[in-house]
Amino acid sequence: MIAHKIELINKPSLVDDVEKGIINYLVRNKFKPGDALPREIELAESMGVSRSVIREALSRLKMLGMLKATKRKGLEVSNPDILIGLDRVIIPGILDRETMEDLFELRLILEMGIAEILFIRKTPEDIAKLREILKKERSSKTRAISIPSEVEFHGKLYEIAGNATLKRMQSILWPVFDFLEKKEIEKGEQPHLSEVSHSMLVDIIERGTPPEYQDAIKTHLRVHLERIFKEGGESI
Amino acid sequence: MIAHKIELINKPSLVDDVEKGIINYLVRNKFKPGDALPREIELAESMGVSRSVIREALSRLKMLGMLKATKRKGLEVSNPDILIGLDRVIIPGILDRETMEDLFELRLILEMGIAEILFIRKTPEDIAKLREILKKERSSKTRAISIPSEVEFHGKLYEIAGNATLKRMQSILWPVFDFLEKKEIEKGEQPHLSEVSHSMLVDIIERGTPPEYQDAIKTHLRVHLERIFKEGGESI
Repeated sequence: MIAHKIELINKPSLVDDVEKGIINYLVRNKFKPGDALPREIELAESMGVSRSVIREALSRLKMLGMLKATKRKGLEVSNPDILIGLDRVIIPGILDRETMEDLFELRLILEMGIAEILFIRKTPEDIAKLREILKKERSSKTRAISIPSEVEFHGKLYEIAGNATLKRMQSILWPVFDFLEKKEIEKGEQPHLSEVSHSMLVDIIERGTPPEYQDAIKTHLRVHLERIFKEGGESI
Repeated sequence: MIAHKIELINKPSLVDDVEKGIINYLVRNKFKPGDALPREIELAESMGVSRSVIREALSRLKMLGMLKATKRKGLEVSNPDILIGLDRVIIPGILDRETMEDLFELRLILEMGIAEILFIRKTPEDIAKLREILKKERSSKTRAISIPSEVEFHGKLYEIAGNATLKRMQSILWPVFDFLEKKEIEKGEQPHLSEVSHSMLVDIIERGTPPEYQDAIKTHLRVHLERIFKEGGESI
């Protein structure tokens, strides 16, 4: 009985099928952003389903930004916002712990991985902006790590790396890092105060090399990496 | 007139609002995976909209995996598949060039960024599996890079890194890398044959260190990095 029930639940619904059918239709016919879609009634007839099913499937594709409504032409294909789905579902209270830990680790991977591109794209203006953020950090009264200044500093690093998708991903994922950090602190763990400060990172970005940066950011994020090492059974 | 039209198009629809309203309701009331949702009619009444609008909004959340249908309880909150939205919209023909280039670069960042975690988690079995993939590559008759073997080799690296979200992201993004690679070849560019071979990478994973690996993977992917350097005006 249970196996039967699970099968029923996981079976794609008619709307799921129609949604995929519409995507396949667009791909097969080489639709490009700006091209108008057939009318709802034509889609319904050609796919042999009701207009309400078509409307539901189109609504999903509109949500993903693959289709947009225009006044003149009805629906047209659009260059989708590829991270909108991620943006919708990143709700720390609802995601399971395992997924959140994967995402946290993804952050470490990204921050170590941007080293090369960071050094390619940095400008003197970027360094000046980083130093401004440092000044604000120092003038802050609290000793504990301030989340907004963490976001601003690390966000600026992604910005220097110059990849819009990456930068957006960071801002979507930040609530997860924030949530996990607070959980650690609630458990009595010390807030992350690293041997390598933001200020040292900026010095390396200004005058150092990518490998030096990778080494420094690793130490900066060591508290988090150590959690992974603990699990793996080795030490840094 | 045009400004007016754009405003109309970008205005969130009623379904957009209801969709966000439902998410806020779930978060505010601390719904967890497994909790049953109120019935459609109750949601419609409390939000003052028609059942068809509610149904459309719920359909979107079902698509994202945030809600799932159960036989017994109607809809319940579910641990969402965080990459399902990305999976739906990654269609190389429809994405614009800029987004695809961002994603390609993201791959480079990820492959350089996983070095530390790769060395923490590698096992002798992983190395053996990589050597098996190499053997298959060598026995392949074609001189050109074989896409399936590229996917298999680099996919295995992500697998060793042991992050399920990352691994899934790679498989979703691969059609983009594939598409861009083919475009380069169509333009008459040589297919990417690197000084650092897969076999050298495996030797380093087996006996080397994370910085050695980072250096080697950088050279392995140099063809692609060079495109970025060209743009930035520096040289490696």
